[in-house]
Amino acid sequence: MSIIAVPHVPTSVLSDAWRRCIGTSEMHLALRRDYLESLELTQAEIGFDHLRGHGIFHDWVAVLRQYDVAGHAGTRYSWTYLDQIVDAYLEVGIRPFLELGFMPDALASGDRTVFWFEGNVTPPRDMATWIALVQATLRHLIARYGRDEVLRWPVEVWNEPNLPEFWLNADQAAYFRLYEATARAVKEVDADFQVGGPAVSPGADGWFVPFAEFVARNDVPADFVSFHAYTTGPAQHVPFGVYQTLRHPSSLLEQFATPGKLLAGTVLEGLPQHVTEFNTSYRPDNPVHDTAYNAAYLAPTLVGGGDVVDSFSYWTFTDMFEEQGVPVSIFHGGFGLLTHRQIKKPTFHLYAFMARMGTDVLARGEDHLVTRDADGRVTVLAWQPVGGTDDPAEPEQHTLRLSVPVARRDGSAPASAYVHRSVVNGDDGNAFTAWQRMGRPASPSQRQLDALYEAAEPRVTHHAAAAVVGDDGVARIDLPLTLARHEVTLVEIDPVTDETPAWLDDARILGR
Amino acid sequence: MSIIAVPHVPTSVLSDAWRRCIGTSEMHLALRRDYLESLELTQAEIGFDHLRGHGIFHDWVAVLRQYDVAGHAGTRYSWTYLDQIVDAYLEVGIRPFLELGFMPDALASGDRTVFWFEGNVTPPRDMATWIALVQATLRHLIARYGRDEVLRWPVEVWNEPNLPEFWLNADQAAYFRLYEATARAVKEVDADFQVGGPAVSPGADGWFVPFAEFVARNDVPADFVSFHAYTTGPAQHVPFGVYQTLRHPSSLLEQFATPGKLLAGTVLEGLPQHVTEFNTSYRPDNPVHDTAYNAAYLAPTLVGGGDVVDSFSYWTFTDMFEEQGVPVSIFHGGFGLLTHRQIKKPTFHLYAFMARMGTDVLARGEDHLVTRDADGRVTVLAWQPVGGTDDPAEPEQHTLRLSVPVARRDGSAPASAYVHRSVVNGDDGNAFTAWQRMGRPASPSQRQLDALYEAAEPRVTHHAAAAVVGDDGVARIDLPLTLARHEVTLVEIDPVTDETPAWLDDARILGR
Amino acid sequence: MSIIAVPHVPTSVLSDAWRRCIGTSEMHLALRRDYLESLELTQAEIGFDHLRGHGIFHDWVAVLRQYDVAGHAGTRYSWTYLDQIVDAYLEVGIRPFLELGFMPDALASGDRTVFWFEGNVTPPRDMATWIALVQATLRHLIARYGRDEVLRWPVEVWNEPNLPEFWLNADQAAYFRLYEATARAVKEVDADFQVGGPAVSPGADGWFVPFAEFVARNDVPADFVSFHAYTTGPAQHVPFGVYQTLRHPSSLLEQFATPGKLLAGTVLEGLPQHVTEFNTSYRPDNPVHDTAYNAAYLAPTLVGGGDVVDSFSYWTFTDMFEEQGVPVSIFHGGFGLLTHRQIKKPTFHLYAFMARMGTDVLARGEDHLVTRDADGRVTVLAWQPVGGTDDPAEPEQHTLRLSVPVARRDGSAPASAYVHRSVVNGDDGNAFTAWQRMGRPASPSQRQLDALYEAAEPRVTHHAAAAVVGDDGVARIDLPLTLARHEVTLVEIDPVTDETPAWLDDARILGR
Amino acid sequence: MSIIAVPHVPTSVLSDAWRRCIGTSEMHLALRRDYLESLELTQAEIGFDHLRGHGIFHDWVAVLRQYDVAGHAGTRYSWTYLDQIVDAYLEVGIRPFLELGFMPDALASGDRTVFWFEGNVTPPRDMATWIALVQATLRHLIARYGRDEVLRWPVEVWNEPNLPEFWLNADQAAYFRLYEATARAVKEVDADFQVGGPAVSPGADGWFVPFAEFVARNDVPADFVSFHAYTTGPAQHVPFGVYQTLRHPSSLLEQFATPGKLLAGTVLEGLPQHVTEFNTSYRPDNPVHDTAYNAAYLAPTLVGGGDVVDSFSYWTFTDMFEEQGVPVSIFHGGFGLLTHRQIKKPTFHLYAFMARMGTDVLARGEDHLVTRDADGRVTVLAWQPVGGTDDPAEPEQHTLRLSVPVARRDGSAPASAYVHRSVVNGDDGNAFTAWQRMGRPASPSQRQLDALYEAAEPRVTHHAAAAVVGDDGVARIDLPLTLARHEVTLVEIDPVTDETPAWLDDARILGR
Repeated sequence: MSIIAVPHVPTSVLSDAWRRCIGTSEMHLALRRDYLESLELTQAEIGFDHLRGHGIFHDWVAVLRQYDVAGHAGTRYSWTYLDQIVDAYLEVGIRPFLELGFMPDALASGDRTVFWFEGNVTPPRDMATWIALVQATLRHLIARYGRDEVLRWPVEVWNEPNLPEFWLNADQAAYFRLYEATARAVKEVDADFQVGGPAVSPGADGWFVPFAEFVARNDVPADFVSFHAYTTGPAQHVPFGVYQTLRHPSSLLEQFATPGKLLAGTVLEGLPQHVTEFNTSYRPDNPVHDTAYNAAYLAPTLVGGGDVVDSFSYWTFTDMFEEQGVPVSIFHGGFGLLTHRQIKKPTFHLYAFMARMGTDVLARGEDHLVTRDADGRVTVLAWQPVGGTDDPAEPEQHTLRLSVPVARRDGSAPASAYVHRSVVNGDDGNAFTAWQRMGRPASPSQRQLDALYEAAEPRVTHHAAAAVVGDDGVARIDLPLTLARHEVTLVEIDPVTDETPAWLDDARILGR
Repeated sequence: MSIIAVPHVPTSVLSDAWRRCIGTSEMHLALRRDYLESLELTQAEIGFDHLRGHGIFHDWVAVLRQYDVAGHAGTRYSWTYLDQIVDAYLEVGIRPFLELGFMPDALASGDRTVFWFEGNVTPPRDMATWIALVQATLRHLIARYGRDEVLRWPVEVWNEPNLPEFWLNADQAAYFRLYEATARAVKEVDADFQVGGPAVSPGADGWFVPFAEFVARNDVPADFVSFHAYTTGPAQHVPFGVYQTLRHPSSLLEQFATPGKLLAGTVLEGLPQHVTEFNTSYRPDNPVHDTAYNAAYLAPTLVGGGDVVDSFSYWTFTDMFEEQGVPVSIFHGGFGLLTHRQIKKPTFHLYAFMARMGTDVLARGEDHLVTRDADGRVTVLAWQPVGGTDDPAEPEQHTLRLSVPVARRDGSAPASAYVHRSVVNGDDGNAFTAWQRMGRPASPSQRQLDALYEAAEPRVTHHAAAAVVGDDGVARIDLPLTLARHEVTLVEIDPVTDETPAWLDDARILGR
Repeated sequence: MSIIAVPHVPTSVLSDAWRRCIGTSEMHLALRRDYLESLELTQAEIGFDHLRGHGIFHDWVAVLRQYDVAGHAGTRYSWTYLDQIVDAYLEVGIRPFLELGFMPDALASGDRTVFWFEGNVTPPRDMATWIALVQATLRHLIARYGRDEVLRWPVEVWNEPNLPEFWLNADQAAYFRLYEATARAVKEVDADFQVGGPAVSPGADGWFVPFAEFVARNDVPADFVSFHAYTTGPAQHVPFGVYQTLRHPSSLLEQFATPGKLLAGTVLEGLPQHVTEFNTSYRPDNPVHDTAYNAAYLAPTLVGGGDVVDSFSYWTFTDMFEEQGVPVSIFHGGFGLLTHRQIKKPTFHLYAFMARMGTDVLARGEDHLVTRDADGRVTVLAWQPVGGTDDPAEPEQHTLRLSVPVARRDGSAPASAYVHRSVVNGDDGNAFTAWQRMGRPASPSQRQLDALYEAAEPRVTHHAAAAVVGDDGVARIDLPLTLARHEVTLVEIDPVTDETPAWLDDARILGR
Repeated sequence: MSIIAVPHVPTSVLSDAWRRCIGTSEMHLALRRDYLESLELTQAEIGFDHLRGHGIFHDWVAVLRQYDVAGHAGTRYSWTYLDQIVDAYLEVGIRPFLELGFMPDALASGDRTVFWFEGNVTPPRDMATWIALVQATLRHLIARYGRDEVLRWPVEVWNEPNLPEFWLNADQAAYFRLYEATARAVKEVDADFQVGGPAVSPGADGWFVPFAEFVARNDVPADFVSFHAYTTGPAQHVPFGVYQTLRHPSSLLEQFATPGKLLAGTVLEGLPQHVTEFNTSYRPDNPVHDTAYNAAYLAPTLVGGGDVVDSFSYWTFTDMFEEQGVPVSIFHGGFGLLTHRQIKKPTFHLYAFMARMGTDVLARGEDHLVTRDADGRVTVLAWQPVGGTDDPAEPEQHTLRLSVPVARRDGSAPASAYVHRSVVNGDDGNAFTAWQRMGRPASPSQRQLDALYEAAEPRVTHHAAAAVVGDDGVARIDLPLTLARHEVTLVEIDPVTDETPAWLDDARILGR
């Protein structure tokens, strides 16, 4: 194992594309306590900028209400739940990434729905009424939250129109009509709104150029391009679950980069690229989401995604998610960083570790990222590189060794550094493993939950490392790291200022 | 106005039938934050024993799950949401009053549903599967919460089977079959469960004797009799609301008493009587619920209900209620003691005032209740007597005058009493009135909410009243009370122990 | 009573000099829970910028430690408590206004102390050690809280050196030496610190010009001028209390203005003027502080103080104050806006009302201030003008009548305004009165405290006022105000946007 | 290493003498926020019954006030702080263990004081005034908190009267006079109070028989015997600290048992024995308190103390303690289970582990305690046995191996058990070690504190252990334990009920 000499001078600033957005299922779930406590925890330990959820126009949010009673007939917009939802977002410091979707029954042209919660996926029966709904909603949001705030919320038109489950017949022309009408409506409310699409799922490369041509031809507003990325194969079903093959992790970054390449030379070239959903599996019932493997697999994506796109939004922050009905078990392969009742999964920690990285990048490799803060703290994120289904199994452990520069805020060299390491792998920081060992209790008792919360916390170790000044005048510590299978680890290194008084002698603690 | 001399010796102990139960709509709403904050507030300021809600078996709680995948087929019970709901109840010190109802789709014999949330109201397709569901649920609850706890939760079979909206064809024979199978199933789980019915709505006097005869004839377990009481006439619809006539308040107590009278001489004679729902209007969109009138109207019911029944459960503690869809406005005539976002209505205060009454009853009248605590505190609840729709309008004010005995804990007579009064009427403690004056904002801004919270608090006044020892050796204060229209008022009277030092002289505060 | 026509166009921006600083006794009290909860409440409802307290170098904060043990001798600076104190300040959003004072015993030249807590008031035995202490403290604060933060904390040298109780012999020359050494030491740490003095009590007009001459002559740094203002006469003692005469309220503003006038033509002319303490009485045991009179008396000072000084700091925000020993009773004439256990006094509400005023001043008079916010809300602060001891008693009530312009954010005229009034006087919002009526319990029971908290809240009333468009095209409402004796009242006026649907008819609520 | 077969049938019920009481320094410290948050944390994770602190009559609590002003002279009792203190105790569910002590200056016969906080240790100048003070205090407490509550608070007379530092000249006769007067005064208030003494420090064996003879001779009330136990030798001073030798841990239990033996045959024989203070070192600045060694050393005392005494009270729960002045560093050898700012020390975890033990004792040995709960959970507390100063160094690790019976609540044998282990030793669960490695920052930054909080949590590991049914029909798991130097470990063993569905196959998670 060779030693990687981490440079003393930063090579770049760490992109925060990884934290610009996080996903959630139906917006109406944000009325729930467990959901909001999960969001608060997520914001406290990670801190995302935006939250993108489906169903702002689902009838369970109930924005569009029609009446015909006692001689009074008409449409009424109702903000009872939408305001509660958005209030709750802002209360914990996260902004909506608006996705305009699901069709209110009263406005739908058909009764085709998707998922357990029956989101209507048909085009509007009447485009003018749709436009009125969109504009009333945006105007209300501006009135309630202020223009400065609301203009920071991107507006995405519909979700995955390339799939017949989400858009009747996956009718591209119909989507483009919806997009055009909606984008113009949004800009009419305020020309500074950022509007975009086409929000397609993986496998829709054929949509980008036509979309660009359409907006060019018709001079339709488009401020960003959005799409999704997943890397699993077809679902192999079992009751309440699936298994799936998984491609190599590099395929995620390739998916991120593709639309930008396809759009080169079109009017959409150079626009912000938003991956408005990504994950390993696109299924909310694949146990891979609960594993340390999932975290190790995604580590290079979080580190490198900002090179190719402007945001990439993990789908989703919580297991509160009802597409396939209400989950029957606390761990059930849900997308969440957190389970119901807020047990942290390994991928939660991957994100929390990213949130503890510094601002300046000192080094990046296939198994590590090293950053530094203004106050001299150096942070190392390291992981075991893993492959997909077809790769050979990863070894039981992975090692790397870094030579890490350390300096105090004032530039002076410390004699030693305090090294604080947080570990997540198949055993440590892994409540899923503990839960398996408990016998997989579907609805754990409070005692079991308490044990799971403890098991979910990363293992913490610490030591003092001597700093040695090299020929280049830079003080460095030696940092050999051994990672267990599927491990993701965070190392925080602080230059020590020794305050030990001269008279202290720990050997005398027992008075000898 | 004559003076009412309140006796010095208690006449009875105050019944707590009024606080034994409170209602709520669908149990799944207890997953919501606003709901749980509302429940916490209700428990902090009132403190009910039980909470009765619909829909434990509604598919949105998702207890019954069936599967047939990859060669595995069967039934699975899922406690994911039910446990979260019941955990949350117990966390704030309230117990479920179990109402077994709505039929899971997988078990329903038809597709007839009720209300916006589509509760299935058809009998089980297969009684054995129903029994298995009921027993699995009760056994799970005992395993999770302990036998001692769960046996304190009454079990009521279905809701309002006399109405075709709630039970297919209002088929009495079919209900009796369901009741018999269910009651036997419950007792098989534990013979100490308290099970009962028939949970009928008003206007079902014809159900009681047949129900008694049925359980007698078939030796079916029945531990209590349950039914509902409302006093409004037919709904006069407007969009998102109704108006209704209202009978005299005394009709509520009459409804409470009727089943007990009808059942005299049957095997059900003498069983506990539970009014598992009552209110003025049975509609969740009648503005009467938001008024001070509603509180004044119900005051005699809260005071007197314990004379005739064992519990009577106000329907409901919160406006979070979706039978007619999601409410379009913060005030909308909902049943709740609290609106969405927890604005207190006058009837909330009526209950909160009851919760501040003492243990011993000193006096009761058509416009007052006087109690005393062990520590000498005397509490007066007073209200303006109101009639129903057909009565003449109540006068602008109502007066009464009490001569109230005051004594310290040790029996000694104080020279004065501290009199602390809390007032709710059309202006004071009335956010509904404030909201009307604001222009009825459907979804108020935070500033408006803050003003509404302030406006919702009772007006507080206080004075010191001189105590005079009468011929009977009892010290009394004179308490003349003037109540505004529709007022409910609470007066707390504490004997004063004067700690004023000899040297104090308030006339010298400005140094003169 | 004539009608005051409030102009539609703002005359000025409301100064926030009134909120720039608030006082507190000894800094070590900030280790206490009740203190910190009081501070949090104060910040939530008022929101001051800075907090000035005595005793940063008092031995109870224990910054300076000396040792001579086992052959090791020296000085050690200890931040154990100081860091906890300042952490707690910043946690609730308030910054220290540093007052360098009380002499650590180890550094004192004598044993003269002041007050129950025995603050040493003698000059340093050795100026170099004092300078080292000051500089170590400032350097530590910068290291812990950051330079940007700490440079926003003014540094005042000592407290009331003109009084022999606070500075040995009130020796002016000695103070000037201390000031010079300290100011130079502060600037040596960072030239951008703002340092000032002489922090004199009322009656020290003779100090200002000599101070100016001294700093001019010696080229000593001085960035601001500080002094105190109180308006009471000599103390007439009773046990645990005093009574005092009180000058007219205008004398406060005169005291504020005097040093600036005296310093005209000196090098200190034009420097910021900080009234680092003011109140009616300078005694922590004068019941005037607990009264509504105190609030009415100070209203014109809060409104007008910003005209003449840059900050004026009410002495103090809490009754937690031990100069005369631990208070023996919940109300005891303490300086606090809040009592122990956080009962709000009338003067708390005066400040809370100020915090609800808008940004733009529309009108100011001897009994009122009218402001408007960007969103159209107009706020009126009104009070009964009161005199001092020698004035005739104020009448039972005071009336004024305003014609108030109302307009929506977009400039349009509303048909009506929602008028929300908060009232504090001898009865309303007055726990002191309630406490007197309770018999002045020195240490109230929880029940009594609950009643006091209720009694301490302002009375809230509301109505809708019709807006009439005048000849000038401006919509106005008529606002007649009747104030009770010693009343301070806040009126918030919001233009109404009427959302009442056409079909609503409140006359039908009972179904008629 | 032999295998210890843990019996299936309990041998005894676990005594809770270890949790009946915990110590704290001066009662006035309970006004502080950090203190109360520390107490809340202690109660949440451990849960003691009583809290014993010095100084109820110290002038900083200020109960006794005398005045002579304006012709009014007298004594006033003031409850301002005492009520806040006791309110705060009860709020977190802990009761006072009253220690009547330090003499108010106004009542003292001399000016001899002890410690930085200057507690007066002289007898009362006038016994009648002392009696009045004691009785007024007890009567006030009964009036405020109720007789039932207050009678559960033992009353101890003075503290360590055998030491001249704490009682003038250590005058035994004078103490007996004080005891007699006080005990009679207490019983006069309520004969059901439990009163006791003599509260002596170690080395006062000569006090017990004379005390028994005195109370017998004079028929003085005595309901319990109290005394202290410490095992360190003389202090070897360094600045702000000491080192001390330490006797073998068994000497603690010997000290606990001695007074009971000495009192055999006296009137005090058989009375409850309360060790109202114990610890390793009696110094608040000995670093031994901060170590894992301290926890391992005390483990046998916690396990066995209940055999010989009725309570033994660790001195103290928090480092907030000012006998030697304000501590200069976050770790400073304080007595506390918690440091300032609530960093948990190893001994905190020892207590928290004890609080997680079950009700029934299955086994006890020199390095382990095994218990079981009604629900089948088996809990093992294990520790490395350590000696005192003179013993040879403990080895790097310690091993033991248990064969642990496991059964479900219903008695059935599980196929496996979930084994959850919490580890505290020199590295794990040891913020003191982390702090040393950081360079011993005296006042850590928030970042350092966050790292210390993480480092302070026990390391958690878990595994599933197969259960094997033995010849005796009892299912057992094999539990080999390796403990690091100075380790204290908790193992919780839950019988598994396997809910794994038939269709799950973790080998398929990657879809293979």
